[in-house]
Amino acid sequence: MITSSSNAQIKNITALQKLSKERKRQGLFVAEGRKMCLEAPTQLMEKLYVTESYAAENSLEEFAGVSVEMVKDSVFHAMAETKTPQGILALMKREDRRLSDVLAGEKEAPLILALENLQDPGNLGTILRSSEGAGVSAVLLSPGCVDIYSPKVTRSTMGSLFRVPFVLSEDFLGDLAELKKRGVTRYAAVLEKSRVYTEPDYASPCAFLIGNEGNGLSHEAVALADERIRIPMGGKLESLNASVAASLLIYEARRQRG
Amino acid sequence: MITSSSNAQIKNITALQKLSKERKRQGLFVAEGRKMCLEAPTQLMEKLYVTESYAAENSLEEFAGVSVEMVKDSVFHAMAETKTPQGILALMKREDRRLSDVLAGEKEAPLILALENLQDPGNLGTILRSSEGAGVSAVLLSPGCVDIYSPKVTRSTMGSLFRVPFVLSEDFLGDLAELKKRGVTRYAAVLEKSRVYTEPDYASPCAFLIGNEGNGLSHEAVALADERIRIPMGGKLESLNASVAASLLIYEARRQRG
Repeated sequence: MITSSSNAQIKNITALQKLSKERKRQGLFVAEGRKMCLEAPTQLMEKLYVTESYAAENSLEEFAGVSVEMVKDSVFHAMAETKTPQGILALMKREDRRLSDVLAGEKEAPLILALENLQDPGNLGTILRSSEGAGVSAVLLSPGCVDIYSPKVTRSTMGSLFRVPFVLSEDFLGDLAELKKRGVTRYAAVLEKSRVYTEPDYASPCAFLIGNEGNGLSHEAVALADERIRIPMGGKLESLNASVAASLLIYEARRQRG
Repeated sequence: MITSSSNAQIKNITALQKLSKERKRQGLFVAEGRKMCLEAPTQLMEKLYVTESYAAENSLEEFAGVSVEMVKDSVFHAMAETKTPQGILALMKREDRRLSDVLAGEKEAPLILALENLQDPGNLGTILRSSEGAGVSAVLLSPGCVDIYSPKVTRSTMGSLFRVPFVLSEDFLGDLAELKKRGVTRYAAVLEKSRVYTEPDYASPCAFLIGNEGNGLSHEAVALADERIRIPMGGKLESLNASVAASLLIYEARRQRG
């Protein structure tokens, strides 16, 4: 039972909640809340932290085989990210995948979503949910994207984090080139000189490239793409929300594939 | 020039920023930031408030005919909602529309989005953007929706607030019945006993009913609907983000209408 917030484990959890650098260095992240912990694969669970109150009211049998640490309620509060913590969080191993591994395991025509410098945590979480729904094979994230393991993102994925294969690219343009080699047609979402997104045939392997919320895709990424597509917009609208745009594209591919 | 934050106008703006009740009682709301003010129709502008710094660096010629009040920078900070205010905000008249007025002005087959108890400000803002993009005729909001005139919503609409006709329904089920009388087919987004959303023909007048983020549509709203539709979801996903779901439906109607 941990009773002090100066305990080394508590300090480390706090650091992992706050610092992307620490999460990367240690290869760990934190899954917080009952639903997230129940959806997290136990084989990736390094340790489970629960309050006395949580343990008194809930069964822990779903976490068989996981090392469990009891924490005093007030101490738990200190390491939790949420304001009204549910008294349960898991220290998780990161499962960093490479693009080639994900594609190798894919039986059907791959459907890839490639995100360049996406910054809003809520958008990334929403995109992961949509990607699970539309059956995306892999989400490729450029190095400039918001950290997918940050508490705000993990929470907003509502568990999709554990079910959608994603790749933290270290060389985004290189990975886009790699997709081409593997026969994946890459569609860049841009307004200029583009076809309406419902026109191309997405039955073959394809990837949709979505850019940053404010600035869109980089010139380099657009130049690498095989085709340019746009979602028609009426009125005086300058852009759709990035998670909406991504969802429309992947669901159009899903509609066509039936 | 207003130099004190105890000035009655400043106090009133602060109240309007914070309280939905005051916005409703006074029939006013606040549009904050340069972009929002430039997109706001000047004929609905009650007054424009700018800081000395803003006026020194920017032209105010777009606001010809609008009464302008200068505000000391520190005082402006007190009434602004954003942490780093741009030094410009407008006190706006609300333009409360009725469903019948909006439908009367519609030339093509109406495309309606009816939102029941939507709670997330960001979701509502995103939905308004998508609605402008997809050419929605009207967004109908149940009385239990988050206040569309709240600062968080207005900001996240990015100007669509001024371009998408919306109706603050006082009798949501009554308005849904009214739609039926006017020949509008009402499609409820629900998972059970529903058709895939791409199956129906949306060429005729139609309305999509979207429910609360956590609880979905009420039984009463679903019972009133003519058809039940669902967006297919793979994996173990329980639901899509509400703004994504709404966007997929209205863009499917737009796709079919060509």
